[in-house]
Amino acid sequence: MSKVAVIGAGSWGSVLANILVMNGHKVYIWSRRKEQVDELNKQHTNRHYLANFTYDKRLVASVELEKVLDDATMVLFAIPTKAMRTVTADVASILNAKGLKPTIVHASKGLELGTHKRISEIIGEEIAEENREGIVALSGPSHAEEVAKRDITLVTAASTELKSAKNVQRMFMNNYFRVYTNTDIIGVELGAAFKNIIALGAGALHGLGYGDDAKAALMTRGLAEIARLGIALGADPMTFIGLSGVGDLIVTCTSVHSRNWRAGDQLGRGEELQNVIENMGMVIEGLSTTKAAYELALQKKIDMPITTAIYQVLYEGKNIKRAISDLMQREGRSE
Amino acid sequence: MSKVAVIGAGSWGSVLANILVMNGHKVYIWSRRKEQVDELNKQHTNRHYLANFTYDKRLVASVELEKVLDDATMVLFAIPTKAMRTVTADVASILNAKGLKPTIVHASKGLELGTHKRISEIIGEEIAEENREGIVALSGPSHAEEVAKRDITLVTAASTELKSAKNVQRMFMNNYFRVYTNTDIIGVELGAAFKNIIALGAGALHGLGYGDDAKAALMTRGLAEIARLGIALGADPMTFIGLSGVGDLIVTCTSVHSRNWRAGDQLGRGEELQNVIENMGMVIEGLSTTKAAYELALQKKIDMPITTAIYQVLYEGKNIKRAISDLMQREGRSE
Repeated sequence: MSKVAVIGAGSWGSVLANILVMNGHKVYIWSRRKEQVDELNKQHTNRHYLANFTYDKRLVASVELEKVLDDATMVLFAIPTKAMRTVTADVASILNAKGLKPTIVHASKGLELGTHKRISEIIGEEIAEENREGIVALSGPSHAEEVAKRDITLVTAASTELKSAKNVQRMFMNNYFRVYTNTDIIGVELGAAFKNIIALGAGALHGLGYGDDAKAALMTRGLAEIARLGIALGADPMTFIGLSGVGDLIVTCTSVHSRNWRAGDQLGRGEELQNVIENMGMVIEGLSTTKAAYELALQKKIDMPITTAIYQVLYEGKNIKRAISDLMQREGRSE
Repeated sequence: MSKVAVIGAGSWGSVLANILVMNGHKVYIWSRRKEQVDELNKQHTNRHYLANFTYDKRLVASVELEKVLDDATMVLFAIPTKAMRTVTADVASILNAKGLKPTIVHASKGLELGTHKRISEIIGEEIAEENREGIVALSGPSHAEEVAKRDITLVTAASTELKSAKNVQRMFMNNYFRVYTNTDIIGVELGAAFKNIIALGAGALHGLGYGDDAKAALMTRGLAEIARLGIALGADPMTFIGLSGVGDLIVTCTSVHSRNWRAGDQLGRGEELQNVIENMGMVIEGLSTTKAAYELALQKKIDMPITTAIYQVLYEGKNIKRAISDLMQREGRSE
């Protein structure tokens, strides 16, 4: 029986923790918020994130990071990108003090603002090598709401260390949560992050009244441009047509469960950005990822018309109707 | 002013004909059915195929193939795959008798049963070289219903002769129907045909009650397997991530307008195949394409688990619930 420490009790972290409990592992989940921890421990619910779901009673929640990390052989981070740097630093000092060397897994989808670093790079910088047994990104087309209902979901466990990826596969795999390994963690992390930009665009199209043809075209062009940037950053092109690439792109752009799609939809309907952010009540990763990708594309001289259009809407006040119309009517040429 | 002969007055053929009229070309459209021709010429409607749409009054319909082909500089075929061989042979003899040499375009999505030939191969065999100025496949994520409403749609004009593809681009392009050229006609035709198999599968998943995660996973795996077969048949891998590949796959698997998706959905709900075919009242290309792809995969020794599962359901009476469950729970391994 392995002990897993899950850091972050949002919808995805809590559902992944629940899978691990049901797969027979001992799981402690950490949250900063006392009321949430009490709710998880007493009512076995997490209503702000997942309205109608009851967690396994064996899942233990705590606000004490030290207690959560005690004896952990695996640490799973499921927190917003902007919190990664500080939280991993806190975790690192505890792992070091306790002399632990767990497998590190993360399920976050973004890039650090300013540095443009991937999540595994942040982890690699903050947690010393002697306190980690490989870093694994868990990614793919997966809505917490569906996994909670035990709908079949296929995901990727990616790591430069295949042994660590296989360890994650073994721990999470069951008859509805299917895990495939991949060694291209760069491509997996970049696909997971960048697809949220295209989801904002697909949502905007919908909000503006465009149809399914336009959406499919935007997604196709979007996949091409995020792959171009990803390849320039060292990703394997094939990863973009895998589960964490086109798979996650499809589910994020076509499912009502996606926050990024819903944010784009509201912007397309004319809602102010500030209101969209407040209404969501959860982090919309695509907003800062758009900025990171836009800056990286400039650095690497990669043509990213969709990312540029979304950037102009979010950060330069360009009219969304005009931005999308300009984008969809660019001059026809070869594919 | 060019004269275009459109062969076939189903939903797609008639909407493409209407675009050409509105772009300023002289267009004659052919149908075998006198009542349909009369309806198109007198009421300017085509209700069996497109319930609420009025065509441009300048579109002329006729049952006389000779009249339709007279002086044609472009011939557009938009008929079911199974009719291609005989109709192209009829067209060929008229073009020959009249000494015409038009650009040949087709908008069909299938493979010939038995021979497994692509549409452009059938055309190449039936119409003599002196009677054609290049063969172009027009394909991409496009629902007739949306193009009729002038929703923005991006498509590919593919030909080994770039000049012919550019001619088609020039004739069709307007502010809502955006045409990109491509020289990989093999990849474009195979992607267009094979995606209907995956759409049957995505529909079946929905009919059986699976969620968005499972659908995205099936589409991702489906794209990989149709690309594998396509590459073995001479296609450029990149075409499968273009408009006629992943673009058409997305729209066909996620839009209620898709016949193949609807057919799969009804099968998933337990409807008998014969009833599904009768209820549709229009050709479901994916049924015979599944057979063609299954046979080609055996010949080329390509692993196609989704195609095999759909084939077993359609042609070997395998229980659909069992087939899909087996498929989705295959052993986890690397991507």
